[in-house]
Formats: sequence, C-alpha cells, structure tokens
Amino acid sequence: MTASGGRDSDTGRIETFSDGVFAIAITLLIIEIGVPHVAGTESLFDKLVQLWPSYLGYAISFLVIGTVWANHHNRFRLISRSDHILLFLNVVFLMCVAFIPFPTALLAEYIREEKYRITAVAVYSGTLAVTAVFFTALWLYAAADYRLLDRTVDPLLLRAMTRRYVFGMLLYILAFALAFLSPTASLALIVILALIFVLPEPEGSRGARRSRRRSVRG
Amino acid sequence: MTASGGRDSDTGRIETFSDGVFAIAITLLIIEIGVPHVAGTESLFDKLVQLWPSYLGYAISFLVIGTVWANHHNRFRLISRSDHILLFLNVVFLMCVAFIPFPTALLAEYIREEKYRITAVAVYSGTLAVTAVFFTALWLYAAADYRLLDRTVDPLLLRAMTRRYVFGMLLYILAFALAFLSPTASLALIVILALIFVLPEPEGSRGARRSRRRSVRG
Amino acid sequence: MTASGGRDSDTGRIETFSDGVFAIAITLLIIEIGVPHVAGTESLFDKLVQLWPSYLGYAISFLVIGTVWANHHNRFRLISRSDHILLFLNVVFLMCVAFIPFPTALLAEYIREEKYRITAVAVYSGTLAVTAVFFTALWLYAAADYRLLDRTVDPLLLRAMTRRYVFGMLLYILAFALAFLSPTASLALIVILALIFVLPEPEGSRGARRSRRRSVRG
Amino acid sequence: MTASGGRDSDTGRIETFSDGVFAIAITLLIIEIGVPHVAGTESLFDKLVQLWPSYLGYAISFLVIGTVWANHHNRFRLISRSDHILLFLNVVFLMCVAFIPFPTALLAEYIREEKYRITAVAVYSGTLAVTAVFFTALWLYAAADYRLLDRTVDPLLLRAMTRRYVFGMLLYILAFALAFLSPTASLALIVILALIFVLPEPEGSRGARRSRRRSVRG
Repeated sequence: MTASGGRDSDTGRIETFSDGVFAIAITLLIIEIGVPHVAGTESLFDKLVQLWPSYLGYAISFLVIGTVWANHHNRFRLISRSDHILLFLNVVFLMCVAFIPFPTALLAEYIREEKYRITAVAVYSGTLAVTAVFFTALWLYAAADYRLLDRTVDPLLLRAMTRRYVFGMLLYILAFALAFLSPTASLALIVILALIFVLPEPEGSRGARRSRRRSVRG
Repeated sequence: MTASGGRDSDTGRIETFSDGVFAIAITLLIIEIGVPHVAGTESLFDKLVQLWPSYLGYAISFLVIGTVWANHHNRFRLISRSDHILLFLNVVFLMCVAFIPFPTALLAEYIREEKYRITAVAVYSGTLAVTAVFFTALWLYAAADYRLLDRTVDPLLLRAMTRRYVFGMLLYILAFALAFLSPTASLALIVILALIFVLPEPEGSRGARRSRRRSVRG
Repeated sequence: MTASGGRDSDTGRIETFSDGVFAIAITLLIIEIGVPHVAGTESLFDKLVQLWPSYLGYAISFLVIGTVWANHHNRFRLISRSDHILLFLNVVFLMCVAFIPFPTALLAEYIREEKYRITAVAVYSGTLAVTAVFFTALWLYAAADYRLLDRTVDPLLLRAMTRRYVFGMLLYILAFALAFLSPTASLALIVILALIFVLPEPEGSRGARRSRRRSVRG
Repeated sequence: MTASGGRDSDTGRIETFSDGVFAIAITLLIIEIGVPHVAGTESLFDKLVQLWPSYLGYAISFLVIGTVWANHHNRFRLISRSDHILLFLNVVFLMCVAFIPFPTALLAEYIREEKYRITAVAVYSGTLAVTAVFFTALWLYAAADYRLLDRTVDPLLLRAMTRRYVFGMLLYILAFALAFLSPTASLALIVILALIFVLPEPEGSRGARRSRRRSVRG
C-alpha cells in the first residue's frame, strides 16, 4: 500500500465524491445573489449596500460548508472501511450539505423583515442542525467498537473526538432553538461554531496520520 | 502497478469524468428550488410548507443519483478496458443522468395539480427508465464474453450481477408504466428501488476487489 | 515513476483542471432548459413536446463537449511537458468550451423562428469552430518539432494525428459557413463530426500508451 | 513516498478542494449571460452585439480566475505542511474567488451606463484586490521563516517570489484606485496583470520541482 492508498481504498471513492459535492455546493452559493436593478436617479452603490444580507449569508454559509468539508475529511482519515449503512448515511448527509444554498437564499431575502426573520433564521439554523445530526450519526456508526475505523487509532483520542462531535451537534441544535428567541444570537453562534470547527482537531489528525505512516512504512 | 492504478488505467479517466458529472448533477438539484415570495400578511412558514413537492423531488432525485453513482462505480471496478462503444454508451448514459434535474423540477411544479400529475410523473420515471436502459446496455456490452471485464471476475458472480441489473432496469420500466395508473405508486417504487440499489452488491465488490489485490501483489 | 505519474507530471494539473471544466460545462447545459408554464386547459405534454429544440440543443452540445473532452484527454497523453504558451492556449480553449452553454440556449430559443434561425445556428457553429481553432493551435504548438511531446511518439502517428485534427477543424469551419446556406445541414455536420470524433484515434492512443508503459517499466 | 504523494500530503486535500472551487467558479461565469429577447423586427444579431459587455466580463474574469488558479497551484507546490491558520486563510481566499461571478455580472450590466460605470468597475477591481490581499497574506504566512514551506526551497528564489506576489497585490490595489479616475484604465490594467501572471514563475516552479524530486528519490 502506497501513500496514495487513501484515494483507492474502500472509502476513497466516498471521499472523492463528497469533496466534489462540497466544492460545488460552496461555489453555487454565489448564484443566489442577483445583480440589483437600478432605475432613474437611484444610486447603484446604495442598492449594492442594501444587498448586505446576501453577502452575510454567502460568507456564513461559505464558512460553514468549508468547516464541514474540513471535518468530513479529517473524519474519513480515520475511517478505513465502508459498508452500506455508512454509504447511506453519507448520501443523506450530503443531501443536507447540498441543500444549504436554499436556506441561505431564504435568509438573505427575509432577514431584514421582522415578521419573517424568525422563520428564515430557524430554517437556516435548522438545516445546519439536521446536517450536524447526520454527521454525528455517521461518526457514531463508524466509531462504535471501531466498526469501520483504523484499528491503530488511540482509544483516548477516539473518545475525545466523539465528545467533540456530539458537543458540536448539541450547539447547532442550540442555535436552532435560539432562532426563536433571538435570530441574531442564533447566527452569531453559528459563526462562532464555524470559526472553532474550521480548526481540524490538532491531536486527532496528527495522531491518526502518525499511525497511518507507521503502517505504510512497517 | 500500485494501488492507485485504477485512476490511470484505461477506464480511470472515464470514471473520474463520470464522477464529476454525478457530483455536479446531484448538487445542481437545489438550484431548481426557488425562494418563495411572500406578500402582505402571508406566512412565510406556510409558503415554505407548500413547497413540499420541491423538497420531495430533491430528496428522491438525490437518492436516485447517489444510487446510480454507487452502482456506476462498482461496475467500473470490474471493467478493466475501454473501447469506443463503451465510451459512447457512457456519454449517452451521462446525458441521461445530467438531464434528471429537469424532470425533477417538472415534478415539483406539477405534482399537486391533478390534470398534470400523470404527465409529470411519467416524464420523471421515464427519464429514470431510459437512464436504466443505457446503464444496462453499457454493462451488457462490457460483460458479454468478458469483452472488457477483468478476467479474474468469478463467472457466477458475473451472472448474478447481470441478473440484478436487468431486473433493476425492468423495475424502472415498470415504474414508468405505473405512472399512468398511479403516479404515487410509481414514485414509491422509485424510492424503494433507490433504497435497495444504494447498497453496493456485497459479494460483487468484495470478490472483485479481492481478485484485484491479488493481481497487484502477484 | 509509478503508473499514477500522469496526474502529477508537468501536465497533470492542466488535465485535472480541464477535466473539471469539461464536467461542469457539460452538466450546466440542463440549467438552460426551463420548466414550461401551463395555464388553463393547455396540455403539459404538448408544452413539453414544443421544447424539442431545447432537448436537441442539449443532446448535440452534450455530445460535442463529451467528444472534445475525450480528444483533449488523448492529446494530453502525448504531451509530456508544459510551458507558458501551452498554459495560455489551454485557458483560452477552455474559455470557448465553457462558453458553449450560451449559444446552446440561443439555438434552443430561436431555431424555430425562421428569421432568427441563421443567426442562432451561425453563432452556435461559429463557437464550435473557434473552439476547434484553439484546440488545433494548442496541438500544433505542442507537436511542432516535438516541442512538448513525449519523444517516444512515432513520427508517422504524429503526422496522422495532426492531419486528423487540422481536417476536423476545417470541417467545423465548414459547418459555420454552411449555417448561412442551410442551418439544418450545418447542425447535421456538427452531429456527424461529434459522432466521428467521440472515437479516440485508435492507433494514436494505443501507440502512446505502449510507449509510456515501456518507459514506466524500463 | 511515490510521485503521487502531492495529492495525499498534508496540503493535497486543500489543493484538490481549491481546484474544484476554481473550476466551478470559472465555468459558472457563463450562467450570468442570459439569452437576449428579440421582438418584432429587431435583429437578433444586433441584440447579440449589444451584449459585448457580457462577453468582455466573461473573458476577463475567465482569464483572471485561470491565472489565480495557476498561481495557487504553483504556490502550493512549495508549501509542504498546513495548519489551522493556513486552512482558514485559504477558505477566505476561496470565498473571494467564488464571489467573482457576481461583480462580473454587475460589470456586464452597468459598464455601458456612464453614471453607474465607476461603481461597477470599482466593485469588480475591488473584489480582485481583496482576493489578491488574502492570496498574499496566505503566502506571507506560509513563507515567513519557512513556516510551512519545503525546506529545500532556495532562499533567493523565495525572496523573488515574495517580491513578485506583493508587487502583484499592489498593482491590483492600484487597479481599484484607478477605477475612480478611469474605469477603462482600471480594466486594462487587470487584463495586463492576468496576462503577466498566467505565466507560472519559471525558476520558481522548476526549482521547487527539482528539489521535490530529489527528496522523492533520496
């Protein structure tokens, strides 16, 4: 097995396909921002400034999908086998990720109007919460009793990662609940979560990679 | 030949290109769902609920394309050579897959109106049936007399796979015919087929991979 | 150098990027076909039948881009080095390929109306002709004096390929000229060209691959 | 470690994901050009000619993104490790790249109307300037004290590259400033910059590759 084994292993095809979906979903976000129409003496600059919810939605969703991609990748470094249930959970998870452009456009359209704001933010944070639930389910399924994991992963590390993922999921669910009390607080929590989770778990990935290299050399 | 040979083999470039088309077609599905326009005292939540046919179409087509991707990938693990006819059949097959977002949008638009429902479901299931026909034609062409197959594939396994694919194709054609009697039954059959076929044939892939590893090591 | 060298060689990154652009351009074609709006007692089926120019445009462009992709790939199997000019010619060539969805939509919109038909078909065939010109320029630049080619390529094969590419380019230019006399004949020629060129030049690719394998083993 | 190591190294996954975003953003540009509507005795040809700002915007942005892609790729050939900050800077940089289709459409829509021209060109060149700033920040972060670089990179080469990137960034900022004086000069500078930077720094990439091969063989 060479260092390039990851691409051709049991899980390599899932990773490549998932990476494609992530890259496309993240790039499609821009399509939802339409060029404003200016008439008469209106200022194009003012019209562009008024589009701020679109830019905000674009930036948050880009950050969120970028984060989810990084975490998906790290996770699959530890998963060394696949089975039907993993494949199915991953397709449902990708269905959630590819759905994100829709609530993003909804958020951009309605965040300024007070009577629609809660609905828009709740649908947005709700989509992210459901995504997090399936992401965690995927991990719990693969990690339980090392079902699909690389056997060389340190059990302590494993427990730390599971704690991290479950905790992250609970915070996304909290963001959904917060939407009904304070849409602003909900969005703030989502941004903070993305900024925290963009960091690939340091010990996790390093530990996993070390063990992998060992198995390559040994 | 290293473990990464699959990517550079005769069929590797077809697989990579096809995977790209799958990933893009599946992610483009979300574009067809437009943000609803709310006016006056309308409820955004109600408007979003009314979009249920769009969510349903999105979910079914995502599942179907995900399934087709998984099966395409498994099949090409056994196909070790390519020729012009295979290349052509694959392009026509991809033309069908990339077409799926259109009947999905049609389904979402017209499934609620009784007088258009049969047409919408028939076009949708018809597209899937034609896709299945070309997929089966591709396999039959490659598999006949091991024309383009890995010679180490077990003949019993081969016969089981061919049976499976032909049977699947017949069920997709049945779904098309059902559309004219009961659009609901037609869609239900499509969902069931996707759920069954998302499972990569267990013995098939394992057997093929085993023989492949052998040839790598030997 | 392993069998996977192609992906990491000087030209590997150009190929991977180009493949991405091909896969996306070919899949974006479907976006141009909008769901028809039906009102009153109109038949959805009739409305769908009236969209035939869209299906035709989709099918022709899919075939053309699929063909161009296959030829691009074959050509880059023989090109073993890159330089700035090749990079630039390839970007301009991809600019033409990614442009194809626009004249395709134009063709679908105006092919039925006689007074616009010539313009629509001329723009469509003209785009393909310009694409072919840059494609041929790219090849001539790389192939002249084996500037960027694999040195093991047979000179006879090389001359045959150049003849083939120049001839193909001239036929695409002929299709453009034909648009002004008979739009139908122009489109027919384009379909025939795609069907001929979908076939990767048999001796060409086999010869190249043989020499490549030799250099891998040797 | 085989020659395919680059794909699986610490930075390989960032490169693959970034390449996907580049390829999709560049191909999505065509979506912004809508088919013109002709009525009565209008000439379709005239209508198509009037779309020249769209073609211009398409061509410039295609060239710019193609250039940025080539430079990103070259840079990552020298970056051999990644960390959280690099990952984050790269996501923000990609956020800028994927945003480019929006100011491109804005440019196409408003470049003909004098009162909107400065705003449209300023937003366009401003987006490119911000992209260049993050691109340079990413490089400076990775290159400072060889933080994430391949240790075998020649210090003289390194200094030359840094100079080149900082200088390029300053010119993009100049293009933004120029937009307020002469939109035409601003666009001209952008085209010139793209044509210069499409050339991968010759010594840079060759030197890096040589050292890399050495480490592979040694």
